[in-house]
Amino acid sequence: MFQATHGAAAVTECVSKTPLMTDLYQLTMMQTYLARGMTERAVFEFFVRSLPAERRFLLSAGLEQVVEFLASLHFEDDELTWLEREGHADSRLIDYLAQVHFTGDIDAMPEGTVFFPDEPILRITAPLPLAQLVESRVLSLLHFATLIASKAARVRLAAEDRLLVDFGMRRAHGSEAGVLAARSAYLAGFDGTATVLAGKSFGIPLFGTMAHSFVIAHEREMDAFETYARNHPDNTVLLIDSYDTLEGARKAVRLAERLRGSGIRIRGVRLDSGDLATLSRGVRDILDAGGLGDATVFASGNLDEHAIRALLAKGAPIDGFGVGTRMDVSADAPYLDCAYKLQEYAGQARRKRAEGKTTWPGRKQVYRHYSADGRMAGDCLTLEDDPQQGEPLLRPVMREGRLLAPLPTLADAREHTQAQLERLTQTLRELTPGPSDYPVDISPALSELVRTLDSAA
Amino acid sequence: MFQATHGAAAVTECVSKTPLMTDLYQLTMMQTYLARGMTERAVFEFFVRSLPAERRFLLSAGLEQVVEFLASLHFEDDELTWLEREGHADSRLIDYLAQVHFTGDIDAMPEGTVFFPDEPILRITAPLPLAQLVESRVLSLLHFATLIASKAARVRLAAEDRLLVDFGMRRAHGSEAGVLAARSAYLAGFDGTATVLAGKSFGIPLFGTMAHSFVIAHEREMDAFETYARNHPDNTVLLIDSYDTLEGARKAVRLAERLRGSGIRIRGVRLDSGDLATLSRGVRDILDAGGLGDATVFASGNLDEHAIRALLAKGAPIDGFGVGTRMDVSADAPYLDCAYKLQEYAGQARRKRAEGKTTWPGRKQVYRHYSADGRMAGDCLTLEDDPQQGEPLLRPVMREGRLLAPLPTLADAREHTQAQLERLTQTLRELTPGPSDYPVDISPALSELVRTLDSAA
Repeated sequence: MFQATHGAAAVTECVSKTPLMTDLYQLTMMQTYLARGMTERAVFEFFVRSLPAERRFLLSAGLEQVVEFLASLHFEDDELTWLEREGHADSRLIDYLAQVHFTGDIDAMPEGTVFFPDEPILRITAPLPLAQLVESRVLSLLHFATLIASKAARVRLAAEDRLLVDFGMRRAHGSEAGVLAARSAYLAGFDGTATVLAGKSFGIPLFGTMAHSFVIAHEREMDAFETYARNHPDNTVLLIDSYDTLEGARKAVRLAERLRGSGIRIRGVRLDSGDLATLSRGVRDILDAGGLGDATVFASGNLDEHAIRALLAKGAPIDGFGVGTRMDVSADAPYLDCAYKLQEYAGQARRKRAEGKTTWPGRKQVYRHYSADGRMAGDCLTLEDDPQQGEPLLRPVMREGRLLAPLPTLADAREHTQAQLERLTQTLRELTPGPSDYPVDISPALSELVRTLDSAA
Repeated sequence: MFQATHGAAAVTECVSKTPLMTDLYQLTMMQTYLARGMTERAVFEFFVRSLPAERRFLLSAGLEQVVEFLASLHFEDDELTWLEREGHADSRLIDYLAQVHFTGDIDAMPEGTVFFPDEPILRITAPLPLAQLVESRVLSLLHFATLIASKAARVRLAAEDRLLVDFGMRRAHGSEAGVLAARSAYLAGFDGTATVLAGKSFGIPLFGTMAHSFVIAHEREMDAFETYARNHPDNTVLLIDSYDTLEGARKAVRLAERLRGSGIRIRGVRLDSGDLATLSRGVRDILDAGGLGDATVFASGNLDEHAIRALLAKGAPIDGFGVGTRMDVSADAPYLDCAYKLQEYAGQARRKRAEGKTTWPGRKQVYRHYSADGRMAGDCLTLEDDPQQGEPLLRPVMREGRLLAPLPTLADAREHTQAQLERLTQTLRELTPGPSDYPVDISPALSELVRTLDSAA
C-alpha cells in the first residue's frame, strides 16, 4: 500500500523499517510539539561537520534506504500498544502515530556524489513532529552508508583496475551493517561481495570458494583441492596457504595436470596470510612455469587501501583482493561527525550556538564548478534561493511524500560514482592523511544570514 | 514450531534470523561436503586471537542471540528458490537446506564472563555441513556483542556509580548494531538506553528528554523549557547548552520558581558541549544557590571511559553520563581479531598452520582460579578431557539442538557481569593501554597435542 501511494522502490527486507528504531527523546519532543500545536514546516539538513584525518573527501550513500524508510513509514498496532502501555506516548501522540506517514519533501545529492564538510547531502522539509520523528533513523542510514562508501572509494582508488570483493560481513557490526556495507562497497566500485544476503537483496555479484576449515577437514590438502575442483568445475579458486603457500601452488599445478582430461581448469588461487608481496611472486612463478599462466592470484587478509597500494607499488602480481574487516567497520575512522540539524522552522532560519557546534542556518544548496580538464575545482555553499555558477548538487527527490522519479538503480548509481571519482583532483586522490586544499566557499548571502541571526540573538 | 521443538527463548524480532546472512563459501563448501559424504561431527570454537592495545580483558556477550539464531534455523521457500535459480546450490544442497535445523551441541561461557585471547567462549559440535553453515552469523553475533560489552565495561569502571545511558544508536553501524549495542551496554552495567527498540526488545530502561532542535524551534529558550516541563512533569531534565550553558542553568532555576505552585519540579539539567568540568561546577553552583540542590547534572557529548575518568578526577559534579558514538562503534578498537575455527573433525584434532594464524587444536576448556580475596588469579587453557583445578568457564548450553536449561535473563546476566568485574585485579581494571600481566597457562596435555599434530604433518 505504501509503495502504491508513495511510489517508492520495493522495500528491502534486510533493512529494518520499524519507526521504533529511534531515540526516546524524539517521542517526548513530539508529544510536546503536538500538545502546543507546533506543527509548522521544519527544515532539517544532514551534513558532516568535519573530515576524519584519514579522509580527504566523502561519498554520499544511503539515500535509497532513507527513501524506503520514509515511504513505508507507519506504526504497527503492537508498537502503539507497547508505547502507550509503557507510558512513552500520551493519547494525542498515539493518535498521531497511528495515522502517520511521510508527507514531506526530500532534496538530496545523488548517491555516489563526492562531498565535503558542512555541505548538506539531504534535506527533509516536513511538519516539525514528523521531521523530528525520523531524525535518528535517517542519521543512522546516511551515516553508515556514507562511512563505508567513503572508505571503499579509497580502496578502489588504491586497487586501480584489480578485482575487489567485500569479505567483511563477519566483523561488520551486525547483519544490517554487513548487507549495507556490501552495498556501499559495490556503489563505490567493488566488483562484488561474499555476503549472500547482499546478493539477494541488491543483485550484487557474489564471490566465494573455500575457507581453511574446508582444507583442514580433509586428511590431505590435495584431496581438498581435487574434491572441490570436481564439485565446482566452473569456480575453481584454491585456497593455498593452510600449510605452506608455495607447496600449495605446486599442488594446484599438479591438480591441473591431473584434471586435464576432465576439462576442468584451475582458475586461480587465493593467499590469505604471510608476506603477500613475496608469496604472490613465488606463486605466480610456479603457476606460470606449470602452465597455469591464465590462473589468477587473489589475496586477502587484513587488507585495506594502504596495504593494497603498498603491494601494487612493490609490483606484487596480484589480480584481485578480498577486503573485509577494515573496510566494513571503516577501521581507521569508524564514525563520522555528522548531524541532522534544524535549519528553519515556520519560515524562520534557526541556528544553535552550543560551543564548538555552530551550524550554517537556512535551506542550503551546494554549487560545484570544474576546471577545463573536467576535474573538480571548488564548491560554493549558499542558500537555496541564491543561485550560483556551477552545478547544483542537491536535487529534488520527494515532494509531499511522493517520489518525483524512480531513484537510479544501483548499477546507475555505481556509474555515477565512477564518474565522480574520475573528477577528483590529484590531491583529493591521495590516501595519506593531510589537509584537503579543496575550496568550499561560503556565499555572501549565507554569511549575511549568520550575521543577522547572531545579532538578533 | 522451532521454539516448541528446541525450547529456545522467544526470538527477538529486531535481530535478523535469515541463514542467508552468511558468506557464499559456506554454501560452496557445504555442497562439496555433501557430495563427498563428509558429514561427520565437527568441532568449531570461537575465540579472540589477541587483545587490542586498548583492552586489558574482554567480556563475553551474544550467546542469547546465537542460541536464538540456531534454535530458529531454517530456510524459507523463497530463499531456496533464489539460491537454486542463481546457481548457488545444487539439488543435493537444496534438499539438505530445505530440511535443515540445528541438531548440534553448544558449550559456552555465560554472557558477561571475563575472558582473554585464545580462550574459546563458545564451542559448536555438529555435523560438518551444519557447523560450517552457521559460521559467518555466529561470528557476527559474538564478535559485535563482545566488542561492545568489552568497551562498555570500561565505561562502567570509569563512571563508578554514576548513572550511565547509551546514546549511540544514530552512529551505531545500522539498526541491529544499535539495538545490540544497547543490550551489550546494559549487560556491562549501563542503566539504560535512549534506543526505543532496545527497550521494547529487551526490557532495557529508556531515557530521553529533548534535543537542541526542540530548544531552537522555540522563539525563546525559556519557552522551550516551560512547555516541556508542563508536558512532561515527571521527566523534567532540561538541555541547557543551546545558547549559553550558565544562562540556561539560571533559566532552570527561574522556571522552578515559576512552577512551584504547580507541583512540577525540575529534576535535572543536561550539558552536551563545552568544557564539561568547568561548566558542570558553574551549573551546580547556580542550581544549589537557586534551591535546586536535588536536581541532577547529566553530561553528554563525545564521551568515553577516558573522558569520564578525567571529569571525575577533576571532581566535576556530574551525576550521570550519556555515552554514544565512541561506545557503540567501539571507536578506539572497532573490531576484534576473532575466529571460529575447526578444531576437530571425525574425532581427530585439527590445526591450521597459515603464517601468523596458528591455533590451539582440540576441544578445549578454560579453568580459572582465584586468590584468597576473590580476585582472578589466573587461567589454564586445556583440553576438555583434562580437568584442572579451578572453575571451568565453558558450560553445556545445548545438546542435540535442545537447550538444556533456559538461558539467564538479561537481568541475571547483568548481575553475573557485575560479579565478574568485581573480581578483576587492579591491573586489569586500568584503562590505559598496557600489557595485561594476567596469566593464561597452556596445559601440558594441550602442548603435547600440538607437538603430536605438528610432527605428524
